[in-house]
Amino acid sequence: MRLAVIPGDGIGPEVVTEALKVLAEVVPNAETTNYDLGATRWHATGELLPESVLGELRQHDAILLGAVGDPTVPSGILERGLLLRLRFEMDHHVNLRPARLYPGVRGPLADPGDIDMVVVREGTEGPYAGNGGLLRKDTEHEIATEVSVNTAFGIRRVVADAFKRAEERPRKHLTLVHKTNVLEHAGSLWSRIVEEVSLEHPDVTVAYSHVDAATIHLVTDPSRFDVLVTDNLFGDIITDLAAAVTGGIGLAASGNLDITRRNPSMFEPVHGSAPDIAGQNLADPTAAVLSVSLLLDHLGEKEAARRIEASVAFDLATRDQASPGATQAIGDRLAALVSSNTRQAG
Amino acid sequence: MRLAVIPGDGIGPEVVTEALKVLAEVVPNAETTNYDLGATRWHATGELLPESVLGELRQHDAILLGAVGDPTVPSGILERGLLLRLRFEMDHHVNLRPARLYPGVRGPLADPGDIDMVVVREGTEGPYAGNGGLLRKDTEHEIATEVSVNTAFGIRRVVADAFKRAEERPRKHLTLVHKTNVLEHAGSLWSRIVEEVSLEHPDVTVAYSHVDAATIHLVTDPSRFDVLVTDNLFGDIITDLAAAVTGGIGLAASGNLDITRRNPSMFEPVHGSAPDIAGQNLADPTAAVLSVSLLLDHLGEKEAARRIEASVAFDLATRDQASPGATQAIGDRLAALVSSNTRQAG
Ligand SMILES: CC(C)[C@H](C(=O)O)[C@@H](O)C(=O)O
Ligand SMILES: CC(C)[C@H](C(=O)O)[C@@H](O)C(=O)O
Repeated sequence: MRLAVIPGDGIGPEVVTEALKVLAEVVPNAETTNYDLGATRWHATGELLPESVLGELRQHDAILLGAVGDPTVPSGILERGLLLRLRFEMDHHVNLRPARLYPGVRGPLADPGDIDMVVVREGTEGPYAGNGGLLRKDTEHEIATEVSVNTAFGIRRVVADAFKRAEERPRKHLTLVHKTNVLEHAGSLWSRIVEEVSLEHPDVTVAYSHVDAATIHLVTDPSRFDVLVTDNLFGDIITDLAAAVTGGIGLAASGNLDITRRNPSMFEPVHGSAPDIAGQNLADPTAAVLSVSLLLDHLGEKEAARRIEASVAFDLATRDQASPGATQAIGDRLAALVSSNTRQAG
Repeated sequence: MRLAVIPGDGIGPEVVTEALKVLAEVVPNAETTNYDLGATRWHATGELLPESVLGELRQHDAILLGAVGDPTVPSGILERGLLLRLRFEMDHHVNLRPARLYPGVRGPLADPGDIDMVVVREGTEGPYAGNGGLLRKDTEHEIATEVSVNTAFGIRRVVADAFKRAEERPRKHLTLVHKTNVLEHAGSLWSRIVEEVSLEHPDVTVAYSHVDAATIHLVTDPSRFDVLVTDNLFGDIITDLAAAVTGGIGLAASGNLDITRRNPSMFEPVHGSAPDIAGQNLADPTAAVLSVSLLLDHLGEKEAARRIEASVAFDLATRDQASPGATQAIGDRLAALVSSNTRQAG
């Protein structure tokens, strides 16, 4: 297994170290190569993602990314030039974001119920396409446009993936989240494709929710959701909210998948670089560890993936919620749990 | 005071009846004219908003709207053809949505803190501009676009309004909500205008939050917010969530304001027509009553507005939360409270 590792900025390197520690317990011979992309390299060389690095990254089975972003870099530079560029260059069309409320975890809701959902967020188009511009800049007549681009091709592949995932889950339920009553054209295309693909999955029940209503349901009745499929921007919004109601982005993992496997998929915690707590051994590496579980699952190492997730679940159920420990201590605990799980199973 | 009333569909007529009952206690001589726009008229005549009606509506001081939407009408028809058309024709650029957690109200959060915010949502542009289209419809190469249109003119007037409101509030704090790291052009224009206008309001502190992070804060730390200003689509999403955390859209009021007063402003509960409970005397008219309070405030009847809000606050603090009563009973209770408040003050 050849992994490219992009530790990135802020707490990125810290959580990646722990994630690799846990990985080593299940795949001792994983070959990892570090790439120093992020704020430091940008400051030093002006480079965000050189073509040569892109080429090297493609030679790997998967990419593990910590976090990018730093207060010394103007907002958007690293996001668009590195993170989103990676997602687009690698055709990461399925942005997979599970949100599960693990036993023992207390989120902000008084009465959360059982939360166990997976958001399948489109990752390569929509309002993220980078189409748009400014006209008459710095005059009182300035106009800014942003074009959401939605293709049948792009929607169909992500909707098909979402249906497949729904089919494999006990509840077999899929919710399309959009804003069809206002975004008439994109809404029509998304709705028609969901309807078409649903014919191939008669055992999956299908629901629809406007994105505004979905945010209400996520806080009043989150257990109604099983698999959600949505566009890039709505997915960005509802996955942060879904993470919040399941204990916070400190626990939320994600995979940016090219399901055709032409390019390596990329796995990253949903949280950012959290510069305010960087370098202090304070970050919770759980989201990075769960991202490794998604990575293994994607590479077909289902059993190893399951073991890591079970170890995280056990740790969350038994840890002191108020002070779960230092970054390294949590990593050590998870590695030990995975190791003993592995020995028992082996 | 000449009011145009659009009771609309579903629970719309029921909640509007109670809202007018309460209004009568403070403005006994208000002249109201009903307009039968909505699903029934569309079914009967195919009309959504005839030019002649639009002309008549303009002759009023304000519009009170119940709700539009019915399962027998294809999604989007009434929304775009009636509700959004009214907002756009009447140049309702400030969509004002207060969200306050009233004492006694239990929302979904375990530890909500004091929530008292106002969202100033842009109402006449952004992704709601209706620009976009389909290409190669019904082929595998179909493309749907949606263009978010943002003008300096449109942003400046709503940002200026938000700063003025922030200045009048004790905390004098304003948060811009956007997604500047991805929506580069619109984000740049919004940010620059907020910066410019802030120079005229040195006593207002300014913060920025990405929309995804804002949804997290709305459930983990909502009391951080005072005034929020944002675009049409982000405003749609965060105001539903803000309503949810303050007890639900059953309590959330809104005003669609033309602050130039060239056109009548329109006041409506944030909730929809709720066809499932329509005609059963089950809907809570509180949001409609609070919308009347916003209406009066906008028309300069500050004292009457304040009295209605105080009566609602009293009722919410003292009502049986589990069974607050029938639509009519709540309306009667609120009317009686307003009447006794009015007599005391008079
Ligand atoms: C950092 C930002 C560009 C990114 C996004 O908007 O996709 C982040 O919010 C996420 O969800 O991974
Ligand atoms: C019904 C719909 C068109 C409307 C909107 O999107 O503005 C509603 O959600 C609202 O917030 O008033």
